[in-house]
Amino acid sequence: MSGAPEDRITEAALASLAATPDARLKQILTSLVRHLHGFVRDVEPSEQEWLRAIAFLSETGRMCDDKRQEFILLSDTLGATMLVDAINHRAADGATESSVLGPFHRDAAPDIGQMDSISGDTPGEPVIVRGRVAAQDGAPIAGALLDIWHGGPNGRYENQDPSQPDFNLRGRLLSDADGRYAFRTVKPSSYPVPHDGPVGTLLQATGRHPYRPAHIHFIVSADGYAPITTQLFTRGDSYLDSDAVFGVKDSLVVDYVRHDSDTEAAELGVNAPFYTVDYDFGLKPAT
Amino acid sequence: MSGAPEDRITEAALASLAATPDARLKQILTSLVRHLHGFVRDVEPSEQEWLRAIAFLSETGRMCDDKRQEFILLSDTLGATMLVDAINHRAADGATESSVLGPFHRDAAPDIGQMDSISGDTPGEPVIVRGRVAAQDGAPIAGALLDIWHGGPNGRYENQDPSQPDFNLRGRLLSDADGRYAFRTVKPSSYPVPHDGPVGTLLQATGRHPYRPAHIHFIVSADGYAPITTQLFTRGDSYLDSDAVFGVKDSLVVDYVRHDSDTEAAELGVNAPFYTVDYDFGLKPAT
Repeated sequence: MSGAPEDRITEAALASLAATPDARLKQILTSLVRHLHGFVRDVEPSEQEWLRAIAFLSETGRMCDDKRQEFILLSDTLGATMLVDAINHRAADGATESSVLGPFHRDAAPDIGQMDSISGDTPGEPVIVRGRVAAQDGAPIAGALLDIWHGGPNGRYENQDPSQPDFNLRGRLLSDADGRYAFRTVKPSSYPVPHDGPVGTLLQATGRHPYRPAHIHFIVSADGYAPITTQLFTRGDSYLDSDAVFGVKDSLVVDYVRHDSDTEAAELGVNAPFYTVDYDFGLKPAT
Repeated sequence: MSGAPEDRITEAALASLAATPDARLKQILTSLVRHLHGFVRDVEPSEQEWLRAIAFLSETGRMCDDKRQEFILLSDTLGATMLVDAINHRAADGATESSVLGPFHRDAAPDIGQMDSISGDTPGEPVIVRGRVAAQDGAPIAGALLDIWHGGPNGRYENQDPSQPDFNLRGRLLSDADGRYAFRTVKPSSYPVPHDGPVGTLLQATGRHPYRPAHIHFIVSADGYAPITTQLFTRGDSYLDSDAVFGVKDSLVVDYVRHDSDTEAAELGVNAPFYTVDYDFGLKPAT
């Protein structure tokens, strides 16, 4: 008799998966049922609490459309996204660590050249980001593609912000023959994840803020190497230790070095004061 | 630094809950994060698999409205609903076991008297359901309210089926001075849970059918006793051992006893052949 007493329900639910033709699906669902039932047995929800959880999940799903992905946000804020990321991109010596893609990437950002700016007329503190793309042994990788995007000094990405031009603060740059790259932009700002939905309510109920520390996104790819999706975070940002989505790794925190020399600024085609960020990307071989 | 290497992410996610003001919410979310991360570590989903899971949950949420609750259906078909039910209604000697409420209950069903019919002109095999409502020690409970509902011989509830009158196969009956109840209806049929959504797709992918064995729903309540939500299942139904929502318990399977005597039928105001179901409900004291 299926699902009889309390201690046999889990067994019955697991048995119902026995005929799943796809072995991987069977493995995933078996683990899901074990953990879901384990959770229920741990917390012993009242029927009202269970219905509250159902309502939360329903509301989260109803907020999802082509512009908003509240379930990814839930996964992010529970640390699950970064755990999946970590499992899929285990660190290797000399290779850059990964971080989450996030919801703001756009395909086909404008191609830019060395030392070009991606910030147009955006008011803000000028920054030059520069470094090398190399293999794990330090050999330079020429022609690596850096797909770059970040939010403005106002904390908003251009596709959230009608005041910014299309594709502002986005660009695609190739490393040169020595693996070098450099581009100009303005300093990004910390910003809150969307918090007007169920996930925002949950953050508030747990006494958490919705902020992410300031960061610049990169996808770095090159023939023969595994592409890396990552973020460079601003050292000194107030939210480094409490990123709402757990995306920060020590190795991805970079210094914004301030320069006040007009001569130096003129040589680089910017106005003083300006900042430089030096960061070298390391790529693993493709698997 | 929050969420740094793979083995520290769970710790960081748990630490983020430390300031949750509500102790019960903190307990629930702490267990949720442990089990969610445990699930991810067990199955090591690829990024594509994780996005597939996100898409499944989003689609499940998008199907939820005031007529359809796909997340309850997901909970049902994974055995979670019956586990919550079992935890909240632990069996006691002499008390009726519980089963799921399901999505088809309606408030304010018509009041009926002893031996009244709830099936109107619905074609089907006549049934008399009868018995007693008693306390655990067997003492009769007079004036207990039986809220009764079930699907038709076509497998559909009236609120899913324009061919049935409003409130067909629903009624509210009071037990008499001896705790006795009796009503007339037609035999219910097995039927599939809604399977045109993501949950149906999941059932199909696991080689499961969407059927529930035939049953009649009851909520039995009386002053001073804990109300019981349960279902009586038809012995011999093909789906008793594979109820899609794991709702069946041995003690809730009842015999439909066939009677062919015209005399007997006439005495009871039905036509032969007809069936009788005898079931006594036991109520626990209110807590």
